[in-house]
Amino acid sequence: MEKPPSKKGESFGRWFDWVLSEAEIYDYGRYPVKGVGVWMPYGFKIREKVLNILRNLLNSSGHEEVLFPLLITEDMIKKEGEHIKGFEDEVFWVTHGGLDPLDIKLALRPTSEVAITHMETLWYKSYRQLPKKLYQVVSVFRYETKATRPMIRLREVTTFKEAHTLHDSFEDADRQVREAIEIYSKFFDELGIPYIVSKRPEWDKFPGALYTVAFDTVLPDGRALQIGTVHHLGQTFTRVFETIIHKRDGSQDYGWQTSYGVSDRVIASLISIHGDDRGAILPPNVAPIQVIVIPIPGQSEDETDLVWRYASDIDNELKKSGLASTVDLDKERKPVEKYYYYEIKGIPLRIEVGPRELRENSITIFRRDTFSRFKARREELVGVVRETLSDIERNMKKKAWDEFRSYIRQVRTIEEAADIIATRSGIVEIPWCGKERCATEITEKTGASKMLGTPLEVRELGDLKCPICGEKAVTIARIAKTY
Amino acid sequence: MEKPPSKKGESFGRWFDWVLSEAEIYDYGRYPVKGVGVWMPYGFKIREKVLNILRNLLNSSGHEEVLFPLLITEDMIKKEGEHIKGFEDEVFWVTHGGLDPLDIKLALRPTSEVAITHMETLWYKSYRQLPKKLYQVVSVFRYETKATRPMIRLREVTTFKEAHTLHDSFEDADRQVREAIEIYSKFFDELGIPYIVSKRPEWDKFPGALYTVAFDTVLPDGRALQIGTVHHLGQTFTRVFETIIHKRDGSQDYGWQTSYGVSDRVIASLISIHGDDRGAILPPNVAPIQVIVIPIPGQSEDETDLVWRYASDIDNELKKSGLASTVDLDKERKPVEKYYYYEIKGIPLRIEVGPRELRENSITIFRRDTFSRFKARREELVGVVRETLSDIERNMKKKAWDEFRSYIRQVRTIEEAADIIATRSGIVEIPWCGKERCATEITEKTGASKMLGTPLEVRELGDLKCPICGEKAVTIARIAKTY
Repeated sequence: MEKPPSKKGESFGRWFDWVLSEAEIYDYGRYPVKGVGVWMPYGFKIREKVLNILRNLLNSSGHEEVLFPLLITEDMIKKEGEHIKGFEDEVFWVTHGGLDPLDIKLALRPTSEVAITHMETLWYKSYRQLPKKLYQVVSVFRYETKATRPMIRLREVTTFKEAHTLHDSFEDADRQVREAIEIYSKFFDELGIPYIVSKRPEWDKFPGALYTVAFDTVLPDGRALQIGTVHHLGQTFTRVFETIIHKRDGSQDYGWQTSYGVSDRVIASLISIHGDDRGAILPPNVAPIQVIVIPIPGQSEDETDLVWRYASDIDNELKKSGLASTVDLDKERKPVEKYYYYEIKGIPLRIEVGPRELRENSITIFRRDTFSRFKARREELVGVVRETLSDIERNMKKKAWDEFRSYIRQVRTIEEAADIIATRSGIVEIPWCGKERCATEITEKTGASKMLGTPLEVRELGDLKCPICGEKAVTIARIAKTY
Repeated sequence: MEKPPSKKGESFGRWFDWVLSEAEIYDYGRYPVKGVGVWMPYGFKIREKVLNILRNLLNSSGHEEVLFPLLITEDMIKKEGEHIKGFEDEVFWVTHGGLDPLDIKLALRPTSEVAITHMETLWYKSYRQLPKKLYQVVSVFRYETKATRPMIRLREVTTFKEAHTLHDSFEDADRQVREAIEIYSKFFDELGIPYIVSKRPEWDKFPGALYTVAFDTVLPDGRALQIGTVHHLGQTFTRVFETIIHKRDGSQDYGWQTSYGVSDRVIASLISIHGDDRGAILPPNVAPIQVIVIPIPGQSEDETDLVWRYASDIDNELKKSGLASTVDLDKERKPVEKYYYYEIKGIPLRIEVGPRELRENSITIFRRDTFSRFKARREELVGVVRETLSDIERNMKKKAWDEFRSYIRQVRTIEEAADIIATRSGIVEIPWCGKERCATEITEKTGASKMLGTPLEVRELGDLKCPICGEKAVTIARIAKTY
């Protein structure tokens, strides 16, 4: 077998393709349509676990799940000028039904602001019904002309969770933006995905938004990846769709909206950030299998049978205690082949039991995250497994954040920034005067591909100066090579 | 307020539109694309509950959930001649990305046999991997030119659960067809939806199938509705996609397949069959709210407050016991308005508590299915509610089946059949010689729109004769007016 590519640095892309395929998560590049992938059974389970965490966070904060149509008429999507300008190059158009041309072209949703606002106008008329928080998990379509990548840059994004909220004031929508940031922060925390929150610059906000706040993380090749966005939409869409709300004081006004979304990229980061050169490593809270029990054959058939029974009992006890355990009782594959198989798939904890463990009434525990092996008494099984799983989760999160923090660097000059971008990359924070012209020069001269934006919180800037114009810095700009 | 239409007979269609809209289940006809609907929050919850029952049945019988792309290339879909012939008039085509024409036309999936078989060829090579049972829950698209109807005849079917299985022999695929019939039977049983299982005639099978078995029910207007289909696909798709399986005996052969699906029509039947002129009635196992507690104000504010607390306690106790209970503490709406509101939504059980119940330490229970009201002691709360919910489920199922059985009629002559079809309709069983020519005449002369097919089980036919040609009947034909 060929040696798998290393996760770090230049080979990261090949490592990622390798792990998706070898772990049977996601089949990419073999389906005859460019930029789309297939969720295989194991990957689908991971996706469900991730989505369940998100759904719980949304449902418990008053969000309601809905399902809107995929197709949007050309009229609807062109109704808001900024919005269509942002999407017109990347919309897929349905033009024929059967052998007949359609009367009106239909877009495959690139996002659902217009579809949802259209219905909100019919559904919500009074402040009493607000705030209203809807969300859906759907496929969205973008005719990407750049190089596509599995889960990261797709033409069919199959795991688009988009929330759309309606409010009776600017302020309430603003509050909703903060709530959304809090929800996404909790969500990424549960997955152990580190992130930084930035206000996107004016020229890079969502088409139609007043402002956009984004979550970025850093992948193992040092490039930043946008993993979530939150938009204050103001009255952009409610004006053109005439969503009029009767307010508490008796007056009428267009509603105020926000929208926020995450995509398959969350799962891409989950796998990329936690994995290693042996394959995926899944946080226990999203692992379809948390514990794999592997029996090791004995000297005689009788002894082997006893070990097999011992392993099954352990598996049963774990299952009864509510853990997602599986025992691999296949006698035709060697333990080491099984180790390899479940390591690639990222099962966080392995229990090995052979004749020795049987004799000692013990278990051997192997941690996927640290490769450490230790023994425990059989009676301690459930307690030790639970503790170890918690520790794995904690450790994975800490490791991911330590790595991420090492990627965030503060500099004062273009040279320092350029040096970092050229070597380890990551996210560089540099003083900035706030002018778009200087931002363009900063990114160009440092080799960054994009300005991620500015911190939400106010920072003490002292006498820091914009490295381009030399004027007093009004904020910090975050720049990075991005996906 | 206008009187709602009656569920029975001619006004059924209007009743159905009314209940979907008033119960806030599904918004239809107001979205600017023909033949598509919007799942509103309450409807979405019902849909999830229904899907969870199905997912449990599928997962526990070795099915694995996956997610395949929406888009299928023209080449792929045209690869199998029979298949494309069956679908070519009703496929939506994507022809443009942004402002550019695409190199190759892309179909919105009308069903996924070709997409899935393409990948199966890459994934499965050996009998050891089989049988393989995959399924997905997705939107499928049909350019319907007939009149569209909410959930029943749609251009975007949003709740298409399609299973696709692969086997190493004809017999194993045949066994899978029986397993699928069993799974769907259990599924419909859990929902209390009555059904009849027929083998579709040769000329009405799925495009590409060896044979098709279908589940039909009868809606309140007497017309039959197909609610599920199971297909033995033979080697139709594996031949053209070259899905070659190494068999146990060392030989190679194309794989054998089945596919089976259900759609939004399941939820349409659930609501139509159980509902009444007051609205929906949901079986307790799929009701998003199983119990609604409604407090009735007292003579004084103090008394009202005590009742409100009494109601909240009841609600809490029910919630703690695992029941989906809600209490409506709104003081601005009258109890009778609340009754109306929750009756339309089909909440199966209501608890009314006022000053009298508070004094007596009792509860008043109202059953949505029978309109009966009775008292119970407060201490008996959880037990009585559980028992009543079980009884509601049993009663709803029995009622639905009794009604359904009254719709199935055996006749010997065209006149008898025509008379039934013209009046109460339903499903008519009539002796048949097996010739397509006679089937056509039978349906035409009786005013039926379709021959549903023949029973799966062998029947004693005695000297029954085909009413058209007079030859000895070889089977029973089921005919009906259908959707």
